[in-house]
Amino acid sequence: MSGNSFGKLFTVTTFGESHGVALGAIVDGCPPGLALCEEDLQRDLDRRRPGSSRHTTQRKEPDQVRILSGVFEGKTTGTSIGLLIENTDQRSNDYSKIKDQFRPAHADYTYHHKYGHRDYRGGGRSSARETAMRVAAGAIAKKYLAAQGVQIRGYMSQLGPIKIEFKEWEAVEQNAFFCPDPAKVAELETYMDQLRRDQDSVGAEITVVAEGVPVGLGEPVFDRLDAELAHGLMSINAVKGIEIGAGFGSVAQRGSEHRDEMTPEGFLSNHAGGVLGGISSGQPIVARLALKPTSSITTPGRSIDVNGQPVEVITKGRHDPCVGIRATPIAEAMMAITLLDHWLRQRGQNGDVSVDTPRLNQV
Amino acid sequence: MSGNSFGKLFTVTTFGESHGVALGAIVDGCPPGLALCEEDLQRDLDRRRPGSSRHTTQRKEPDQVRILSGVFEGKTTGTSIGLLIENTDQRSNDYSKIKDQFRPAHADYTYHHKYGHRDYRGGGRSSARETAMRVAAGAIAKKYLAAQGVQIRGYMSQLGPIKIEFKEWEAVEQNAFFCPDPAKVAELETYMDQLRRDQDSVGAEITVVAEGVPVGLGEPVFDRLDAELAHGLMSINAVKGIEIGAGFGSVAQRGSEHRDEMTPEGFLSNHAGGVLGGISSGQPIVARLALKPTSSITTPGRSIDVNGQPVEVITKGRHDPCVGIRATPIAEAMMAITLLDHWLRQRGQNGDVSVDTPRLNQV
Amino acid sequence: MSGNSFGKLFTVTTFGESHGVALGAIVDGCPPGLALCEEDLQRDLDRRRPGSSRHTTQRKEPDQVRILSGVFEGKTTGTSIGLLIENTDQRSNDYSKIKDQFRPAHADYTYHHKYGHRDYRGGGRSSARETAMRVAAGAIAKKYLAAQGVQIRGYMSQLGPIKIEFKEWEAVEQNAFFCPDPAKVAELETYMDQLRRDQDSVGAEITVVAEGVPVGLGEPVFDRLDAELAHGLMSINAVKGIEIGAGFGSVAQRGSEHRDEMTPEGFLSNHAGGVLGGISSGQPIVARLALKPTSSITTPGRSIDVNGQPVEVITKGRHDPCVGIRATPIAEAMMAITLLDHWLRQRGQNGDVSVDTPRLNQV
Amino acid sequence: MSGNSFGKLFTVTTFGESHGVALGAIVDGCPPGLALCEEDLQRDLDRRRPGSSRHTTQRKEPDQVRILSGVFEGKTTGTSIGLLIENTDQRSNDYSKIKDQFRPAHADYTYHHKYGHRDYRGGGRSSARETAMRVAAGAIAKKYLAAQGVQIRGYMSQLGPIKIEFKEWEAVEQNAFFCPDPAKVAELETYMDQLRRDQDSVGAEITVVAEGVPVGLGEPVFDRLDAELAHGLMSINAVKGIEIGAGFGSVAQRGSEHRDEMTPEGFLSNHAGGVLGGISSGQPIVARLALKPTSSITTPGRSIDVNGQPVEVITKGRHDPCVGIRATPIAEAMMAITLLDHWLRQRGQNGDVSVDTPRLNQV
Repeated sequence: MSGNSFGKLFTVTTFGESHGVALGAIVDGCPPGLALCEEDLQRDLDRRRPGSSRHTTQRKEPDQVRILSGVFEGKTTGTSIGLLIENTDQRSNDYSKIKDQFRPAHADYTYHHKYGHRDYRGGGRSSARETAMRVAAGAIAKKYLAAQGVQIRGYMSQLGPIKIEFKEWEAVEQNAFFCPDPAKVAELETYMDQLRRDQDSVGAEITVVAEGVPVGLGEPVFDRLDAELAHGLMSINAVKGIEIGAGFGSVAQRGSEHRDEMTPEGFLSNHAGGVLGGISSGQPIVARLALKPTSSITTPGRSIDVNGQPVEVITKGRHDPCVGIRATPIAEAMMAITLLDHWLRQRGQNGDVSVDTPRLNQV
Repeated sequence: MSGNSFGKLFTVTTFGESHGVALGAIVDGCPPGLALCEEDLQRDLDRRRPGSSRHTTQRKEPDQVRILSGVFEGKTTGTSIGLLIENTDQRSNDYSKIKDQFRPAHADYTYHHKYGHRDYRGGGRSSARETAMRVAAGAIAKKYLAAQGVQIRGYMSQLGPIKIEFKEWEAVEQNAFFCPDPAKVAELETYMDQLRRDQDSVGAEITVVAEGVPVGLGEPVFDRLDAELAHGLMSINAVKGIEIGAGFGSVAQRGSEHRDEMTPEGFLSNHAGGVLGGISSGQPIVARLALKPTSSITTPGRSIDVNGQPVEVITKGRHDPCVGIRATPIAEAMMAITLLDHWLRQRGQNGDVSVDTPRLNQV
Repeated sequence: MSGNSFGKLFTVTTFGESHGVALGAIVDGCPPGLALCEEDLQRDLDRRRPGSSRHTTQRKEPDQVRILSGVFEGKTTGTSIGLLIENTDQRSNDYSKIKDQFRPAHADYTYHHKYGHRDYRGGGRSSARETAMRVAAGAIAKKYLAAQGVQIRGYMSQLGPIKIEFKEWEAVEQNAFFCPDPAKVAELETYMDQLRRDQDSVGAEITVVAEGVPVGLGEPVFDRLDAELAHGLMSINAVKGIEIGAGFGSVAQRGSEHRDEMTPEGFLSNHAGGVLGGISSGQPIVARLALKPTSSITTPGRSIDVNGQPVEVITKGRHDPCVGIRATPIAEAMMAITLLDHWLRQRGQNGDVSVDTPRLNQV
Repeated sequence: MSGNSFGKLFTVTTFGESHGVALGAIVDGCPPGLALCEEDLQRDLDRRRPGSSRHTTQRKEPDQVRILSGVFEGKTTGTSIGLLIENTDQRSNDYSKIKDQFRPAHADYTYHHKYGHRDYRGGGRSSARETAMRVAAGAIAKKYLAAQGVQIRGYMSQLGPIKIEFKEWEAVEQNAFFCPDPAKVAELETYMDQLRRDQDSVGAEITVVAEGVPVGLGEPVFDRLDAELAHGLMSINAVKGIEIGAGFGSVAQRGSEHRDEMTPEGFLSNHAGGVLGGISSGQPIVARLALKPTSSITTPGRSIDVNGQPVEVITKGRHDPCVGIRATPIAEAMMAITLLDHWLRQRGQNGDVSVDTPRLNQV
């Protein structure tokens, strides 16, 4: 519970450094009887895997996950599930130069002052490599929820200055960007190619949507569904902003415009993003996250070393010029973990999850 | 831990309905020896109190808080602190008409389906009146942190369509809006007066800043400082978006622009908003929150009743036309609670809080 | 969560000092729809109340509890329940003499060194008066469980050197000792009268039994049902030992004797005390707790003061010569809270509580 | 947090089945800078390892632990520590016969009804093999505490009917029983040899002692140090009873006898077992645990199968005739984990652990 765990009834605890031996997770609280095999997890891990296009880090990691416990004869037993991915392509010599330097905008500086002693190789625990285990654990939650009719999908809605309209889910898996608009892909590729030539990085915005969520998930007050979603999504490396539904757009809205009116056939809009009073309304849950540009770029930057002396830092090694490109499966995973946790809590306190409630989805 | 608690070492648990007998909280984990009296809490409660200007709900509540335990001879003892505010101005007849109706964009619908049985008077537990206890508890955290040199302040940075530039802290407490620009106050008043005539409501944006935070608060991975801040702030009624530092602005930034370079004299910018890798950097922590317009307006809206039949809803009673106006002290409280919780966690795991670390604040 | 909370889904958080203004609790996670009124709580509070016989402390406290939230139109709403009992018979002058002394075997010494600053009046937070709120909260859990067919009852099984055989439940409520053997009551009264003349105190043993518990409550490994029961029961003031089923008697047993054989009609014995592998078996859950003799006696004892100087301490004031006499309702309360918490967790993770499983109770 | 985690700031989460691929743990919250290598853990694992004498199960497991993260250049980094032990000597065919039967007094019955689907091989998650990871994690806590002057040791104080007096710590590690009286070892060996011939099993009592614990660890009310110790110790397989200090012996004691008087030189006795009001007093912390006899014996026993039909069960396979024999390192581990967790909590809330307080240990 000291920072590496998430969830109360469905709990994910992780370990592992970028250049350590392995990454691992313990998934606790998964309901028993769920059909589960490694392939179920591998699918999403492959979607997040580095090196699958020229637009991400060129580190080659197969990210082959093993299930070490909690599954027997193809089904979960209800006991804790151990997951393991061994690192295979560490090249720690890439990093030794910056052992005593703080890369600007990186966790080097804060880890150094917090802990005194840190694994500087590849960012250690602060590396985005840590998110692999979130994706593995999230795949379990996704599978359970899918069997209940809940579908969780994400897409890139902005890359740097390029806004991307949602066109179709089919397109999302057919390009390296999770871009839902096939007509935009070429523009994104051109942009990224130029960015690499500029030795720079850029931010991105991801949108995640959960459909089929029953009414009633989430707790009032502090453990609101949207608050825990914000917690989970903001805990992803590089995320600097979260919106639910209309988000910051609701600041300039009037109540008469923002409120989602209801008719017996359904809600007439979804400015709320599927959450009212912290509790799911049965509408699609819509969250957006802003990811900052990677701090690891080869353009020199001013910084200091561990002795407080000025240095010029150039971050070599293999890095993503836009961490947002691989962030979609991670955001889906955190959405899934949060929803399953609240599903179980709702069933615990209130006896049942109202899957039969007429869902007043946006018509 | 079932939704009404926040924090791990410094823990706030609350109860109370809008039209119930009383509101209360238990604050657990406060360090012993802190000088504390009711007046320390009352100051912030008065800043949040309803009815203090014509721009907020006209319900008159003195919100007089009593400390029932945990303080002896003027100092905290380290045991749990009981807090109580009695409700005095309930007028439940205002609400009886909508007992069987769901106000659009309100928690009526989700509470009904989650619990089956709900206190419909004034929104019951979903009312923003719940936030009074957050402010009371937050005042304790604020006082402890202030003694360590941490100052937490907030202001309104947007009201509906009107953007407000930060000018000076002095101005903030001198108007009903927590507006930091004295020159803007008249415009805000005019806007609000027109809004009331329109029988409508509007959103707002609040900015909270913590200065003097030492390096090292926050945990890696899931319990990042910014993630728990997002959790706490998103749990405030009506909040639909959270930004840390550059927030959604970082999407279009390049790495060479976003990264906050360091010199021996300090950081050269603060796009990170004071958090790197989930851990405080010593820079000011800057968070922004988007609040949606109140759903309780007298302009008729389409909805359904508990039997699924269409109804037209007009929400009478006494409501805030802009909940954002009173949100500044609440946001400060959640920032304070989160920071103190992480302060204690840091001290627990790492033995000390590095208050002596040269803080590389933005110059 | 800093020591004053118990339970994960059904959570009880308390505050209050012996000579403070009031005692209070927040009960979070109670399922909605449970019929509940103050009288439901008062019954058990009256069973624990001081001053009801000459064998307990003569402090007069009506212990009148108020429900401040979470109940609407006579039924729980699922939101947090605030409870309050005001102290009425504090006489703090009784204690002022020992302000700078540590009573031997009392928490004075440890509180002083832990916190630096403590409420020395009547033991402050370390007083057994704290348990009133456990009883109030436990009564809610008891009522919910009773509706599911679970009955929780306790009795005194030993007073000082006098062992008490279980004879009948009816007898338990008909004497001041919760003694299940009517023939023993006179002996207990004589013993206690002599004890008071001796200005001494004595220990006691309480047995608590839960009948009708379904199979399946409890988690494997750390959150075993018996482990959390031990946690809850050992947290009661003065408790120094816990047994489940055969307890310490199982040390000298052979496996062929200890194991509870099963037939289609039921278990043939209950050495396990209703828990196998940390999970309820459907048999009655049987726990025993050992309470030490009160440390507050008027027989002089050697001790030291806050400056480390030797002193002779005589504890005046009004104290129980045997805290075990009032402990039965407290033990029942902790059993009820633990069971309901696990009931909800079981329902959360596993979808249902197997109340229909044939319960193989001891025949 | 769903049953497979223990501790709040120093948190241990485990996975693994008796006949699965591997056992593992994540240790979260370990302070940074602690020198740590696999050999530090192996020492205690070897003390618990099966097959090291003829008196324990003959399953051969090297129990070789690997540290997968959280340690860099020989010191902990403060991030989560992943631990792994691969199973090597599973013989699952031993168990296939009892797949549809419930061994009497075993968790078979309760797991079946709780989860519906269980790993029946070797007891799966309910096997005592699970405790290996507790020992590995506990070794980390032990090492940290040892550096602070806290020493945690245990011994067998009873085997079946044979009571064992404490003679000397040196003797404990020189026999297969953790027996502190060298003169008793032969008697224990004879007893165990006869027991095996009888095809039976027997219980045992273990005593654990922590010396050098500073004043002030533990929280008032629910998270008392002794309550959390009881939780941790009762969560060990087969434990049916817990005593702190005088334990059940305190029932018959008078207050004038039980209370540990203090002089400037120290406490004059230690009936309290080192805990007053739930908080450590600086005296040695003394806990005793009762372990029941193993249920897995080859003497036939009556039971039922999954269809409720009567069966006669003979448990073959390789089992410990007395699980208590290997329980000493496990009890030490749970004591260490609990103490370190409270050490960190005390440091968090109260700023420091009073290691300099004159410890009034028993003279």
